[in-house]
Amino acid sequence: MNRTRLVALPAALLFALALPAQEKLELGKMWTFENAPLEHLEKAHGFKPPEGWFDQVRLSSLRIPGCSASFVSPKGLIMTNHHCVRDAVARVSPRDQDWVKNGFAAKSPAEEVKIPGMDARQLASMEDVTARVDEGIPAGADDATVAKMRAENEKKILDAAKAKNPDFEYQVVRLFQGAQAQLYAYKVYRDVRLVAAPHLQSAHFGGDPDNFTYPRYGIDFSFLRAYEDDKPADSSKHYFRWSATGAKEGELVFVTGNPGNTGRLLTYAQLEYLRDQQLPIRLGQIDSTLVILKRAAAQSPQIERQLRTQILGMENSQKAIRGYHNGLLDAKLMAAKKVAEEAFRSRIDAQPDLKKKFGDAWDKLAAVQKDRMAMTPSLAFHTPGGNNLIARALNVVRAVDPNTAKEAAEQARKDALADLRPSNPIQEALFVDFLARAQKWLPKNDPYLNALLRGKAPAEAAKALRADSKLDERAAVEALLDGGAEAVKASDDPVIAAARILAPIVEKNQKADAAARTAESVQATRIGQALFAAYGTKVSPDATFTLRLSDGVVQGFPYNGTIAPWRTSFYGLYGRNVEFENKYPFDLPQPWLDKKDKVDMTKSVNFVSTNDIIGGNSGSPVINKDREIVGLIFDGNIEMLANNYLYRDDVPRAVSVHVDAIVTTLKVIFEADWIVEELQGNAGN
Amino acid sequence: MNRTRLVALPAALLFALALPAQEKLELGKMWTFENAPLEHLEKAHGFKPPEGWFDQVRLSSLRIPGCSASFVSPKGLIMTNHHCVRDAVARVSPRDQDWVKNGFAAKSPAEEVKIPGMDARQLASMEDVTARVDEGIPAGADDATVAKMRAENEKKILDAAKAKNPDFEYQVVRLFQGAQAQLYAYKVYRDVRLVAAPHLQSAHFGGDPDNFTYPRYGIDFSFLRAYEDDKPADSSKHYFRWSATGAKEGELVFVTGNPGNTGRLLTYAQLEYLRDQQLPIRLGQIDSTLVILKRAAAQSPQIERQLRTQILGMENSQKAIRGYHNGLLDAKLMAAKKVAEEAFRSRIDAQPDLKKKFGDAWDKLAAVQKDRMAMTPSLAFHTPGGNNLIARALNVVRAVDPNTAKEAAEQARKDALADLRPSNPIQEALFVDFLARAQKWLPKNDPYLNALLRGKAPAEAAKALRADSKLDERAAVEALLDGGAEAVKASDDPVIAAARILAPIVEKNQKADAAARTAESVQATRIGQALFAAYGTKVSPDATFTLRLSDGVVQGFPYNGTIAPWRTSFYGLYGRNVEFENKYPFDLPQPWLDKKDKVDMTKSVNFVSTNDIIGGNSGSPVINKDREIVGLIFDGNIEMLANNYLYRDDVPRAVSVHVDAIVTTLKVIFEADWIVEELQGNAGN
Repeated sequence: MNRTRLVALPAALLFALALPAQEKLELGKMWTFENAPLEHLEKAHGFKPPEGWFDQVRLSSLRIPGCSASFVSPKGLIMTNHHCVRDAVARVSPRDQDWVKNGFAAKSPAEEVKIPGMDARQLASMEDVTARVDEGIPAGADDATVAKMRAENEKKILDAAKAKNPDFEYQVVRLFQGAQAQLYAYKVYRDVRLVAAPHLQSAHFGGDPDNFTYPRYGIDFSFLRAYEDDKPADSSKHYFRWSATGAKEGELVFVTGNPGNTGRLLTYAQLEYLRDQQLPIRLGQIDSTLVILKRAAAQSPQIERQLRTQILGMENSQKAIRGYHNGLLDAKLMAAKKVAEEAFRSRIDAQPDLKKKFGDAWDKLAAVQKDRMAMTPSLAFHTPGGNNLIARALNVVRAVDPNTAKEAAEQARKDALADLRPSNPIQEALFVDFLARAQKWLPKNDPYLNALLRGKAPAEAAKALRADSKLDERAAVEALLDGGAEAVKASDDPVIAAARILAPIVEKNQKADAAARTAESVQATRIGQALFAAYGTKVSPDATFTLRLSDGVVQGFPYNGTIAPWRTSFYGLYGRNVEFENKYPFDLPQPWLDKKDKVDMTKSVNFVSTNDIIGGNSGSPVINKDREIVGLIFDGNIEMLANNYLYRDDVPRAVSVHVDAIVTTLKVIFEADWIVEELQGNAGN
Repeated sequence: MNRTRLVALPAALLFALALPAQEKLELGKMWTFENAPLEHLEKAHGFKPPEGWFDQVRLSSLRIPGCSASFVSPKGLIMTNHHCVRDAVARVSPRDQDWVKNGFAAKSPAEEVKIPGMDARQLASMEDVTARVDEGIPAGADDATVAKMRAENEKKILDAAKAKNPDFEYQVVRLFQGAQAQLYAYKVYRDVRLVAAPHLQSAHFGGDPDNFTYPRYGIDFSFLRAYEDDKPADSSKHYFRWSATGAKEGELVFVTGNPGNTGRLLTYAQLEYLRDQQLPIRLGQIDSTLVILKRAAAQSPQIERQLRTQILGMENSQKAIRGYHNGLLDAKLMAAKKVAEEAFRSRIDAQPDLKKKFGDAWDKLAAVQKDRMAMTPSLAFHTPGGNNLIARALNVVRAVDPNTAKEAAEQARKDALADLRPSNPIQEALFVDFLARAQKWLPKNDPYLNALLRGKAPAEAAKALRADSKLDERAAVEALLDGGAEAVKASDDPVIAAARILAPIVEKNQKADAAARTAESVQATRIGQALFAAYGTKVSPDATFTLRLSDGVVQGFPYNGTIAPWRTSFYGLYGRNVEFENKYPFDLPQPWLDKKDKVDMTKSVNFVSTNDIIGGNSGSPVINKDREIVGLIFDGNIEMLANNYLYRDDVPRAVSVHVDAIVTTLKVIFEADWIVEELQGNAGN
């Protein structure tokens, strides 16, 4: 569940609802380091971190593209997930060796392999720039002005920082839906090399079925190393030492990493919109696209290979989004959200000044949702639906429209003639499906849909459209382009006719969508500000793919009518392997079968904890109070998906690789004892 | 899940709803032998049983108290579940050996141990007696007359059969809610001895948490032997041979056994009543009783031991009923039920004669449900609520009531003085809980509840009632009994005051309840008759704890966001054991730990199949097409509980012990090779 595998959804923050019937507003556990949760840690766990604890944790933590990571030795050794470097390993693997499938472990630092494009960011400093982002915005400015001025101010802040110290990379992070802004400075390691990555089928054991679930048996780790001046980077001042025992049941543990995106402070109205419209439309598309792709893949091994990555990625999205949606469909969770929101609003309304300042933000957001409800089917289905002829026709219509700016018109003309290849059967099937779904979501007698269907059923209509249009011929396209607005207006080509209807709708939609986004963003910021006013600032903001600390406890959970254990063992791994007859995706790499007798079956493979994570946290270290590595985050259980919008910690769990499984893999499977010694052999830091 | 652990609910039959959106009326898979599913087996599996197949299967099958069983050798050897004989083993175990905990395996037939009270029934013959049960009932007879005459006819049928051949035991089985009646004759084996029963913790591994779930690791078997004339019974003509390989994935398998009770042909209105009132009231009671019992048990190991069986039994009921209830709360399942019922009614209404005969049965049942809805809270809470003083007062009121029959009055007087022990703290707590729940379900200002509460909160009211009443003193009770109606009427004892209100309500309720039961039973029979008219008689009736055959396929299922394998292995068993640190209920008996190295970890422990079973099927053999034992039913997965009312086979699964696990236990743990040889060593039958 690295970040890139998850879907971007409107950013928001955290509304932790522990008890459905209460109005308790629990504000989750994705703490920032500039607002460290000292009180919370003492109250919840009786833990008072010693002086320097937070700085050490922050500086030992890293962000790599799409994922999280950490320094785990004084010599720049970095730990992350296998799935975070899978593509990178494929890029650097010699063709005849397939390191993804067969694994790789350098025999010494000299064998470590530079990974082009890989880098690692260390959060060096944070500075509150909220006031500077809001600087100069006149009271009563309209939404568009506010949004524009904030963006300009952000750019100024970044430019000034870079001018002052160009060694760092800078980012303005907008927390609490924009109610707070922080300037983060990163030290960037740009020479990162591959040290070890295990076999795909041990890292990815269970494949898509086991993805987002627990009990689990994924040994999903890899090791990289940061280099500076062609030498291992000196990380001796800040790295995590290795725990001898690893995670234990009931233990307090911390996850430090970069959760990507959550929508927990979205208002009830915003969630209703997601539940009733945005997610169903998206899932409808994913579901039928997968059916079409799998049908195509079943036709030949060659097509299957071509489509495999796309299918796997889409299955991942399907499972994730269905999990988010199931959370919103859970009446109890939604009722709890409503109760908490009403309590929040009551607090604001109880104080006249706060009521005046923020009281109408919820209603304004509700009004935007109403607009969205009205426009979303049009945004989704007033499009070419992937049909290349319609896309071409739209370019033709734009190119000849006298209202189109000159440059845009030239580009449209170029695009109209750029690719005249015929569509393939998959594209055809997707377009037929698009028509069928559009029928469901657009009003009856929608002019554009009528122009496409011409009274026929989707499959027949798609076929007829292609048969009746000349837009697959270069000459016909050129004739229209050369004939200009007159020719296009006069054309009886059915695809041109549809595009004439479509073009002004698309233009109108783009404007309406942009206005809604601006209004939503400005009002959401007010919700964030209201949050501070009602509950103070000792709260956890929404995930922003920046560094967070999350506290949790190692603990099983109720599952499948029974209970899931806090950990899984190698017995369980080999069990699931033989119960599925060693068949994909439950097959094990040959060395795991051959060396079975050398594996201590009682050792831990994975474990679960109540830490609050989400996509982007992949590769995050799990540490104990002494800042020792006890595990490595790589996923959540299926129930955790609902936490995207509606937080609770009764059943949702973070899933980690236990250090036992990492050591077993390195020692037994790769005989790479030198890496284990580097992990274990260091004196404290 | 033997029958005694499941709750009796109104009997009904089977409405198989495979697809929510269709009106398909699939009629499940609990086939009777007198109406063997020849067409279904050929259509669904291409299987044509050879001549004599059904008779052989029937005569190899047995019913034992609360469970199912079968002959598995020519010498009277019987296989069933461990949990079916657990109490029997406890009864016959020498005090110093604890065979329940430590297991038992006879070293030879000479060591087999007679079990008092244990018997086994073999279904020898079946005869359709539907016409005889309905004989002489005049057309247009009222519900009460119909019910009474049917009961009288049944008695006549039984008496006549017994007079003709006293060697058999007879039972009139009313199938399809009474639309069909069969006279079953049983040969009864009354000398049944214990051959082998494994350690409790291997049979019951996972305890209450894993109960009704899968993946599962319960080696829940036992062996008995039928004796005749003090010699092993000759079962050589009809027994199941032992499969060398056991169940295989995708294989067609059959379960033959005695499913106890289902409510699948209950009408939609009946299910709504169960969903909204009967089950919630029952679950409310179970939930709070468990809280009270567990709190008491936590006080000392001695109390814990006293309450253990009660707590375990109640946890089992809680899990089962919650599973049934969850099925009824599933909007999709209920919608499918509605669609199927409407289709059924349309078929009846489409033919004027059928419409006249059966058309109003659904509405009449709906009217009964309305009555039930009105009376159930009163039936449930116009009771003494387990309070011994109120029960005593009710007896006093009855004893002195001049309208009470003389004999009943004498009994009431005796009961009033029978047990004057004070109540214990658990009873007190249960009564307080009773008052709290009564407040929820009875109307405001209910006179009886008012008389109990006297304006106080439940805990306070219960205390005050006991403090203010004299009914804990023999003299006071005797004074009231001796004083007669006058004295009772004049008494200002608050408990007597409440009982004066309660007595007439209880009497009225009993009559109303009996009338509703009669009406419901008569109308339900009409639904069964309508079923034959609409869909023919090649359908599967409701479970009646009589012999059925169910076909199914060995197959995994979607679970926990991923997939469950068709089988579990010893790897998995030892995995779950170590993942829970060998702690109860995931601990293993010492021999299983000591002999671990002798166990083939890849062998199967349990497997799942799509056979249609329910409580009472415990101990049923799972056989292949060649009538060989491939497994032993002992439970269902958590999703199967919903099948009690709403049948489907997409996710619900029957859970069986694989023959591998039985052989491993006998050979490795008990070194009882002679039993394995008896199972495996026989030539065909």
